Amino acid sequence: MIMTLQEIAVRVNGQLQGDAGVEISGVNNISGAQPGDITFADENHVSEAAGCRAGAVLLPKSVAEAQKGFPLPVVFVEDTRAAFAILLMAFTPPIVHEKGVSPEAHIGKDVKIGENVTIMPMAFVDDYAVIGDGVTLYPHTYIGQYAEIGGDSIIYSNATIREHCKVGARVIVHSSAVIGADGFGFTTKDGVHTKVPQVGNVVLEDDVEIGAHAGIDRATIGSTVIGKGTKIDNLVHIGHNCQIGPGNLIVAQTGISGSTTSGPNVTFGGQTGTVGHITIGGNSVFAARSGIIGNTPEGVFYAGFPARPHQEWLRMQAHLQKITDMAKKVKQLEKKLAALEKKE
Amino acid sequence: MIMTLQEIAVRVNGQLQGDAGVEISGVNNISGAQPGDITFADENHVSEAAGCRAGAVLLPKSVAEAQKGFPLPVVFVEDTRAAFAILLMAFTPPIVHEKGVSPEAHIGKDVKIGENVTIMPMAFVDDYAVIGDGVTLYPHTYIGQYAEIGGDSIIYSNATIREHCKVGARVIVHSSAVIGADGFGFTTKDGVHTKVPQVGNVVLEDDVEIGAHAGIDRATIGSTVIGKGTKIDNLVHIGHNCQIGPGNLIVAQTGISGSTTSGPNVTFGGQTGTVGHITIGGNSVFAARSGIIGNTPEGVFYAGFPARPHQEWLRMQAHLQKITDMAKKVKQLEKKLAALEKKE
Amino acid sequence: MIMTLQEIAVRVNGQLQGDAGVEISGVNNISGAQPGDITFADENHVSEAAGCRAGAVLLPKSVAEAQKGFPLPVVFVEDTRAAFAILLMAFTPPIVHEKGVSPEAHIGKDVKIGENVTIMPMAFVDDYAVIGDGVTLYPHTYIGQYAEIGGDSIIYSNATIREHCKVGARVIVHSSAVIGADGFGFTTKDGVHTKVPQVGNVVLEDDVEIGAHAGIDRATIGSTVIGKGTKIDNLVHIGHNCQIGPGNLIVAQTGISGSTTSGPNVTFGGQTGTVGHITIGGNSVFAARSGIIGNTPEGVFYAGFPARPHQEWLRMQAHLQKITDMAKKVKQLEKKLAALEKKE
Repeated sequence: MIMTLQEIAVRVNGQLQGDAGVEISGVNNISGAQPGDITFADENHVSEAAGCRAGAVLLPKSVAEAQKGFPLPVVFVEDTRAAFAILLMAFTPPIVHEKGVSPEAHIGKDVKIGENVTIMPMAFVDDYAVIGDGVTLYPHTYIGQYAEIGGDSIIYSNATIREHCKVGARVIVHSSAVIGADGFGFTTKDGVHTKVPQVGNVVLEDDVEIGAHAGIDRATIGSTVIGKGTKIDNLVHIGHNCQIGPGNLIVAQTGISGSTTSGPNVTFGGQTGTVGHITIGGNSVFAARSGIIGNTPEGVFYAGFPARPHQEWLRMQAHLQKITDMAKKVKQLEKKLAALEKKE
Repeated sequence: MIMTLQEIAVRVNGQLQGDAGVEISGVNNISGAQPGDITFADENHVSEAAGCRAGAVLLPKSVAEAQKGFPLPVVFVEDTRAAFAILLMAFTPPIVHEKGVSPEAHIGKDVKIGENVTIMPMAFVDDYAVIGDGVTLYPHTYIGQYAEIGGDSIIYSNATIREHCKVGARVIVHSSAVIGADGFGFTTKDGVHTKVPQVGNVVLEDDVEIGAHAGIDRATIGSTVIGKGTKIDNLVHIGHNCQIGPGNLIVAQTGISGSTTSGPNVTFGGQTGTVGHITIGGNSVFAARSGIIGNTPEGVFYAGFPARPHQEWLRMQAHLQKITDMAKKVKQLEKKLAALEKKE
Repeated sequence: MIMTLQEIAVRVNGQLQGDAGVEISGVNNISGAQPGDITFADENHVSEAAGCRAGAVLLPKSVAEAQKGFPLPVVFVEDTRAAFAILLMAFTPPIVHEKGVSPEAHIGKDVKIGENVTIMPMAFVDDYAVIGDGVTLYPHTYIGQYAEIGGDSIIYSNATIREHCKVGARVIVHSSAVIGADGFGFTTKDGVHTKVPQVGNVVLEDDVEIGAHAGIDRATIGSTVIGKGTKIDNLVHIGHNCQIGPGNLIVAQTGISGSTTSGPNVTFGGQTGTVGHITIGGNSVFAARSGIIGNTPEGVFYAGFPARPHQEWLRMQAHLQKITDMAKKVKQLEKKLAALEKKE
């Protein structure tokens, strides 16, 4: 596929500078770009981009005035990363799978299947499941009884959606993710743990993305909910009965304990952990490895274990780094004071 | 399904107060309960339950005297959670799969299969495996050569039981768990890592439960053992040659390094880690994120990294929170002392 | 299988002491060894081995002079573990699967398949994939479009290799590992996260081993690379665009954030984490639970979060353990100083 720079400028709603007829056939990063490629640079990498081999460059509008003499053809845009994403999509031919329900798939009884689906060989759809329009099921997926998959969702190979779970529209579930395994609930008597039946389900709202090996446990009763547009990275654990708000970003290897609620647009850095049964205020950011041990307010930036305001944590860390010095100072103070006391 | 409160009282071995004829058709939590539901409350939530819409409530016997005037019909029981679990089970119709060995499953040569099994389409049982009575194998399970699955065990979709591993009776293995992958063992010479063959196996004793994405590695020689009734949560790693005692609870994302032994009834909080080749005394609790770096005695409650007695850790944490203050105090002391020394 | 001790000495390139004709039929650890077994001991366990039931023992050459009177037949070797690994391999009959492409496997269109492969039933090879000579694909594996699997590699059950990924020769991918899921990349505007297409791939170089549930994300553009001979343990996360050097050892539950580069022969202890976009010098060791927050030089031994030289971390930890004492001392100093000031 080939586009002229003129066509590209239109596609990304940008402002063209230089030869509108340059032909672009691919996208690449600054160091890898070849003459037929377009690349991009943010404000800090403009000079690096000026020396690269690309055929054209996406730059932020904020530098347009200063870069009138830029040595390569440019398209100035509001958001270079977003524009680059649009072009990546345009230049990458999508993987194509045959439409329809493969005769090598297993479709249970009383299953409802929408229009325009791609159900690949070795996918397994159990009895009474509902598969929406435009859904793609890769090989070795398992869709449980009464589960529902919303329109245009993609379930990758070896992922599991257990019985009664509801997946919204345009959801992506990556390989080997497990939606709706039993929550970890037991009653213990005389050292014997007896399973509490986990008869609730999981609801993934629209536009959710679930990483490889993420596990979202089904509720004991009711639903574990992942809010609209929330994106979950690899190897994340969400305990039973959690209510995760919309627009959250949950980075790899984070664990959210059961019955925890988060507001809208919370970001959890990688390897974060929370206790259960707490409420996390919306529009907050938790640095990587935060350990959240209680309710937190709206709009905070927290770090550390136990998690606290990031600035406070930084100060604490700074002093902690110097604790060896502090111990020496205390020792010296003790000596000097003893000397003074002797004199008295 | 409908039960009278009288029938429910018998089922949970409880003491009825109020209308024995109330008809109950479901179970729910306090806030979600409708008139046909039964709910439950512990001692701290009795007044909340008094105002709910449920048709009846399970309360602890300890409050029976004080709650003679409770506004709703009550069944008083020893353990409200345990009684509720019994009712959850009774009111939730189980998912039903066709009994027998599906002709769409793959059964290898010289496989032994018991009575009353449910081997679903796309399950794979390799040569010489032994499948006990009443076992359920979901689609996309892999049971390796010579592996044995004990009676009434359930192996969920996409789980793997590698060759020679032994799974006891009434075991539950959740989706995408891997039992018996190779332990992480290498000899290194001149920077080249050579694999040490891992020819042992894994033994899951009776009544074990293994969470989604948990990985229990096979022993180098001999067996990695998970003791009777131990429950393992999602995304847990158990290294090769571990000997995990009976009745342990291992919460999500914990990692137990190779050749570690734990006694009976140990609880590991979430995201805990241990070094290898240590012995962890029985009847102990480790708080979430503990880092266990050596042998620990029986019956302890530990926290922190390195893990230590919980009280000690709390004290340390309290002082650590105030380290910024302490640094200020030391600075002041230094000033004051210098002033005093000058005077002398 | 039976070997004389003479044959064993030849096989492990060792020096025989005692009866060359002893017949050995198995290998075991010191405590489990029976008369027909050979076992091994390092320098610290020689006396323990002297009292065991084994038919023969592997000992290190370093103790040969001192152990002329050892009570059992001995083979002295340079590296006892390496020699034992060779014998483990020799005495353990390999699991045998039927060669060839099973008619129950799914082979897409225009797939290239080498000689001497073992493609088991329920393996799925998508269109245009390339399978090298001697490759083994277990049931429920998914090999994506245009993916390539190098010679003699083994892909275990339920593992996924997504489209366009390249797996080298003699690579082992354990069950439920996912190679090439989408990297975690979004642009956010007004709280809405829009997916950045992840159109790169993953390259696993020769002799790599990938643990169960490890996830190696595909690059946004270009390749995420795992260097030759690197071994990755269970539940490890490698973010998009990482360049992991050759000969690394990455222990369980470690997470390497996106675009991070490591040099050759780096060891990451278990549950380590790194930020993204950093460079980690070669020939380094990071203790378990390290948190690496910036570039690190060559040849270091680091620990802690933030990671620092191990000795420094030990000192810091030592003082931290005594922080309760330090707080007491500061309080006493304050009292004494106040008393002195009063006197003045």
